[in-house]
Amino acid sequence: MGTGRLEAFSDGVIAIIITIMVLELKAPHGSGFNALLPIIPVFLIYVLSFIYVGIYWNNHHHMLYAAEKISGAALWANLHLLFWLSLIPFVTAWVHETHLVPAPVALYGLVLLMAAVAYFILARILVRDNGPNSALAKALGRDTKGRLSIVLYVAGIALSLWHAWMAVAVYVLVAIMWITPDRRIEK
Amino acid sequence: MGTGRLEAFSDGVIAIIITIMVLELKAPHGSGFNALLPIIPVFLIYVLSFIYVGIYWNNHHHMLYAAEKISGAALWANLHLLFWLSLIPFVTAWVHETHLVPAPVALYGLVLLMAAVAYFILARILVRDNGPNSALAKALGRDTKGRLSIVLYVAGIALSLWHAWMAVAVYVLVAIMWITPDRRIEK
Amino acid sequence: MGTGRLEAFSDGVIAIIITIMVLELKAPHGSGFNALLPIIPVFLIYVLSFIYVGIYWNNHHHMLYAAEKISGAALWANLHLLFWLSLIPFVTAWVHETHLVPAPVALYGLVLLMAAVAYFILARILVRDNGPNSALAKALGRDTKGRLSIVLYVAGIALSLWHAWMAVAVYVLVAIMWITPDRRIEK
Amino acid sequence: MGTGRLEAFSDGVIAIIITIMVLELKAPHGSGFNALLPIIPVFLIYVLSFIYVGIYWNNHHHMLYAAEKISGAALWANLHLLFWLSLIPFVTAWVHETHLVPAPVALYGLVLLMAAVAYFILARILVRDNGPNSALAKALGRDTKGRLSIVLYVAGIALSLWHAWMAVAVYVLVAIMWITPDRRIEK
Repeated sequence: MGTGRLEAFSDGVIAIIITIMVLELKAPHGSGFNALLPIIPVFLIYVLSFIYVGIYWNNHHHMLYAAEKISGAALWANLHLLFWLSLIPFVTAWVHETHLVPAPVALYGLVLLMAAVAYFILARILVRDNGPNSALAKALGRDTKGRLSIVLYVAGIALSLWHAWMAVAVYVLVAIMWITPDRRIEK
Repeated sequence: MGTGRLEAFSDGVIAIIITIMVLELKAPHGSGFNALLPIIPVFLIYVLSFIYVGIYWNNHHHMLYAAEKISGAALWANLHLLFWLSLIPFVTAWVHETHLVPAPVALYGLVLLMAAVAYFILARILVRDNGPNSALAKALGRDTKGRLSIVLYVAGIALSLWHAWMAVAVYVLVAIMWITPDRRIEK
Repeated sequence: MGTGRLEAFSDGVIAIIITIMVLELKAPHGSGFNALLPIIPVFLIYVLSFIYVGIYWNNHHHMLYAAEKISGAALWANLHLLFWLSLIPFVTAWVHETHLVPAPVALYGLVLLMAAVAYFILARILVRDNGPNSALAKALGRDTKGRLSIVLYVAGIALSLWHAWMAVAVYVLVAIMWITPDRRIEK
Repeated sequence: MGTGRLEAFSDGVIAIIITIMVLELKAPHGSGFNALLPIIPVFLIYVLSFIYVGIYWNNHHHMLYAAEKISGAALWANLHLLFWLSLIPFVTAWVHETHLVPAPVALYGLVLLMAAVAYFILARILVRDNGPNSALAKALGRDTKGRLSIVLYVAGIALSLWHAWMAVAVYVLVAIMWITPDRRIEK
């Protein structure tokens, strides 16, 4: 089976996830510029989540571009990834309603961690489907960045219980690390 | 007529349905981990509905892949299927707001039943459009799993009036039965 | 320019419109079957609007399939059609909140009328772009059904001021008239 | 890399943005025609935002049509554009809730300005990717209209602090200027 419709469906779901978060940005209470001040932290969390969903779309785009064959297992691994991504608006909302306390920041990290694990599983299944000598397998290589991200998310979750803002700093760090698209696949 | 745009439109609608449900997951009231406890049942219903919509997308993907021709009747049969799928977020919301009582669980089953019937009708029309010797007709065969699901949904609806959790167990059973994609079509 | 991306964007917008309406279907207040009774009129209006948006998708699909060239004017005529379709969830919500009184039913008819006019304009521009001897021009012919619909919507709006349910009957009639896809284009 | 999936994802996000705004159009309080009066300003702002998002889709469609190659940097420049577009429903909501006072109208202009800047950056990157002799580079030319828009948005933001309605007049003017699709690219 080709990758066309898998890409189209994933594009649809990711497009909705990235846009749904803006529904959380309610019009400020007040009509002056100072009414925007309490919105700023919400806005920053929105930016971070937007960038994370953007990173996933970007890497998903690159990975599927390199894949030629997809199995039924890959379809489910892809849905599994979309499931965790679909929880990002939910955890984003909890973080911004509670102002950087441990539990929501830890859950935010847990959802990022599970999305990273789901992406890792999808990558392994696609490599299995396309063979160890495929362009995809060579492009992904040892996936050091993917493994490092998982370690950093776990560290972030642990840190969140101590100082929530340190966890957020780790999540921002991982985002910066990924913001350059996966040049391995761009050949 | 080709299947391209039918797939694109269905992908769009199913992507929205699967993502809309997360809007029901409101940020918990409270900022500690224990604030997550009352969310757990909602979350489990969300997971079940996500899996159901995922199953439909998967099977729809396989079935349309095998189809070569679609008639005007197939377009309406497809819209009829999307109609019942679009009610899944509504019944999911009713189930999680009422905590496993008969009526919402029965209605949840009824919507699943009608979606299964709509899928069955769409499959018959596509077989008619593509001929009894088409790849699609051979792949679908006698559609034992489809017929069995319909029986199980009816049983689930009946059970829901007695013990709602038994109906949910039946719905979970049907989901597990379908989670393996339709290998008949994957050739 | 080809029609590919115009179709994809229209599919996206129509898919969202058709699915957004279900957000109006709030979980009933109560947990018994009788809690569903007050939902029934809302549900019927939802079904009617779903069918209308489905009709537009179906006919749009057929018309664009027959078109080969699209001009910049066609892009705007298409956006104009999508604009009126995007108001269907809004007027649907007003109708179901007010229980069949004149003003909302008249506005519902007005939005249907404007969508029909916008579709008519789009059809004319596409015929101009593709020439009077194109497959599209022949398929559309004198567009008797399109003209008749416009007359019926005007009649429905007038009737709504007298007896709202008579207007709804007219809208249902037009929907039935269109539910058979445009066989002229299906060759 | 080809432009197919970039277009599909952008179409999805823009389709959602353009449709999400209608969620702000709540059914009027009341059941007579006069209940529509307080909705009219909201409606006009909705029309303006719809036209703006439509303009971006139109120009994006034309620009990507002319592009042949896209780099990883273009993917991020495109996400950056989608980010600012995704804020249009938010600023639209603030403007209509506050009835033409300076701060919301200025912020509305700022979001339009940032979207224009993001579009300009995307255009530059695409020209770099496709070379100075590409069809795209020739079609865009000196991009006088793009530069003029940026100047007008800045003027609009400044005017908004003085008389909010004058800023809105400037935004309407820019929209009229762009409503004709980019004939440079249409060959």
